[in-house]
Amino acid sequence: MAKLPPLLQQLIDALRVLPGVGPKSAQRMAFQLLERNRQGGAKLGAALTAAMSGIGQCQQCRTFAESDLCSICSDPRRQQADTLCVVGSAADQLAIEQTGQFKGRYFVLMGYLSPLDGVGPAALGLDQFAALLAQKQINEVILATNPTVEGEATAFYIAELCQQYGCSVTRLAQGLPVGGELEYIDGTTLAHALSGRKRF
Amino acid sequence: MAKLPPLLQQLIDALRVLPGVGPKSAQRMAFQLLERNRQGGAKLGAALTAAMSGIGQCQQCRTFAESDLCSICSDPRRQQADTLCVVGSAADQLAIEQTGQFKGRYFVLMGYLSPLDGVGPAALGLDQFAALLAQKQINEVILATNPTVEGEATAFYIAELCQQYGCSVTRLAQGLPVGGELEYIDGTTLAHALSGRKRF
Repeated sequence: MAKLPPLLQQLIDALRVLPGVGPKSAQRMAFQLLERNRQGGAKLGAALTAAMSGIGQCQQCRTFAESDLCSICSDPRRQQADTLCVVGSAADQLAIEQTGQFKGRYFVLMGYLSPLDGVGPAALGLDQFAALLAQKQINEVILATNPTVEGEATAFYIAELCQQYGCSVTRLAQGLPVGGELEYIDGTTLAHALSGRKRF
Repeated sequence: MAKLPPLLQQLIDALRVLPGVGPKSAQRMAFQLLERNRQGGAKLGAALTAAMSGIGQCQQCRTFAESDLCSICSDPRRQQADTLCVVGSAADQLAIEQTGQFKGRYFVLMGYLSPLDGVGPAALGLDQFAALLAQKQINEVILATNPTVEGEATAFYIAELCQQYGCSVTRLAQGLPVGGELEYIDGTTLAHALSGRKRF
């Protein structure tokens, strides 16, 4: 069988690093770019190269940033806030920012505790987090970790840390998602919604 | 609301050139690469840059190639073949090559006739195709265009061209796909399968 040009084969292989892209979609993507949008493909190549080398982490909250401090950590109004929201990833932080409801500071773990994979408190920057609490400027830590086993375990660990520093801890409410239908909601969520019911 | 770092926003925007990638998947892809696979992301960036500028078209069959002739057109055994298969795209050519059943030459249209979009015979290289037929080395042209309206219209046009040069024309068989269930096959395909029935 004839072979694809090496550059094309390399492109198809390289495209598979993208989440959810298998051999067939990678091939489709490569052909489509070559046939219809070489300019867009070249732009994507340049954007990838620039982003992979140019994006680091904020020194203070650990989110993705191009300079030492991210746009939130360099905003003086937000730095005066006494509320700190702990999230698992930069994507989670973005989701909370997009609600427009939170005006405080963040701490981005960039992962969850996972002793089996060798991810301990240091890998999540929790020593840095403890140093932040020691400054005594934070009154409330909001735990916005995923409602999964790893997320919950990490939340417990952080809650204990906060108690050592006498800082109050809250967590995101669990219950029915807006627009969800009761009939299709899983039992555990429904149990949480029941036990966390509020006066109407 | 706080803004994403410009390089990250540019990456998310650029990822949307990929087929089937909307704003949410683009965001997920960007975050995943930054969090877990910067090396793979950088490699993809380099592969895209190299492929978009380094891949051209074969001078003879119009498929993607890095040099003047593709690997099939530079294979002397295949160049002696008197059968030529006409396909709509390089992806279609690859699909036929992967069957391992065809040992002849190809001609890749890189599109179909579409007068409304201004795609005429010249854009599909059909003058080049006619010159190939004029050399009188091709005995049989296999039409392997898509069984769609555009594909059929293009096939008709090419079939007429072949007749002018006294070249015999065949087309891929239409009928039941292997593994398909009769109950779920559309009526037109079933009609083709009936009218094209073969002795058992």
